[in-house]
Amino acid sequence: MSAGKRGRFIACEGGEGTGKSTQARLLAQKLEARGIDAVLTREPGGTPGAEAIRGLLLDPPGEGWPMRAEALLFAAARADHVARLIRPALAAGTWVVCDRFIDSSRAYQGIAGGLGDDLVRDLHEAGSEDLAPDLTIVIAADEATIAARLADRDAGVSDAIGGRDSDYHARVNAAFLGFADAEPHRFVVIDGVGELDAVSDRIWKAVSPLLDDRA
Amino acid sequence: MSAGKRGRFIACEGGEGTGKSTQARLLAQKLEARGIDAVLTREPGGTPGAEAIRGLLLDPPGEGWPMRAEALLFAAARADHVARLIRPALAAGTWVVCDRFIDSSRAYQGIAGGLGDDLVRDLHEAGSEDLAPDLTIVIAADEATIAARLADRDAGVSDAIGGRDSDYHARVNAAFLGFADAEPHRFVVIDGVGELDAVSDRIWKAVSPLLDDRA
Repeated sequence: MSAGKRGRFIACEGGEGTGKSTQARLLAQKLEARGIDAVLTREPGGTPGAEAIRGLLLDPPGEGWPMRAEALLFAAARADHVARLIRPALAAGTWVVCDRFIDSSRAYQGIAGGLGDDLVRDLHEAGSEDLAPDLTIVIAADEATIAARLADRDAGVSDAIGGRDSDYHARVNAAFLGFADAEPHRFVVIDGVGELDAVSDRIWKAVSPLLDDRA
Repeated sequence: MSAGKRGRFIACEGGEGTGKSTQARLLAQKLEARGIDAVLTREPGGTPGAEAIRGLLLDPPGEGWPMRAEALLFAAARADHVARLIRPALAAGTWVVCDRFIDSSRAYQGIAGGLGDDLVRDLHEAGSEDLAPDLTIVIAADEATIAARLADRDAGVSDAIGGRDSDYHARVNAAFLGFADAEPHRFVVIDGVGELDAVSDRIWKAVSPLLDDRA
């Protein structure tokens, strides 16, 4: 990589059980195999501070967070993650592959949680000065595929957000598709049904324009 | 108290060592002695969720919070505190005496921290729908008095915010006085120099109009 060239920032988004964490890992591995410095990270989390906030979000003290507090905590975790890890990595020329980013906050707290998109975007501006991924990959799958994948996970393990009802999660999935429709230049929707390798190939094809761009 | 009458909300503000925590406690005791249901609480904190955030703020994991993340964490703690404790108490007719509230965020993160007042106010709107105290008591003291009080505290115990340099704390103290100047109807500045009882008497006098208002 030529000195001084900014890294690219790719976010993997989707609801529970769409396979996005696995696919984010595979994507980071493929980038490294191509000789591209890449860091795999996740939200909420990615730095010591943000991982501590993650603990509070997924296993809340007391009776659970009001939705406004939840949105602020996600924005706080992201502000730390962006300032301490993502911006420095990009500035050093490293690519960043992030398992969830701002569009998860928009889908989970803004749309499904009822706070509205403007509020969540305002918090992102306040916390992270509106940093946007170069490419956001939304992994979509039908309900039967998602249900089968969730059943394969550790039975009975569910956090305060993943454990919300199916109506909530249906709104989350619909929200991601709506975001992609509204901003086609920043998003690509990937069919998440099928073998891991097949899905990973689809993602790699979507990432290719960014690779060519470096040449 | 007549059924259905909303409680009053009083915030005690000031920099480190101005005696505001002690005075908030004395004020709550005096209200109770007058037969007024009153709850004494504090920020950051006051609820299990907000107290957990307090722990992260005063003893940050990693290398310390970027100022934007710090402001978001305070707003998140306040959102929980307002939704779970302050609004329900006020609705039930209980008075709330709070050791620090939104004006501490304005002074510490907005002015002294350099984020600006608008950003901090926007976070308060997003998190707590702009809840404002009926009366905000700013306890002011000269630097020598503050230095003597801080020396009386447990030596060597300092948190991530209290431990900032004296320029920062001078900006905090000036900010509180500026807020009081700008909004004289919501603020009263109390001279915090002198015996505890003398300062407490001054505060009680400032609170009296709220008491008369109930009659």
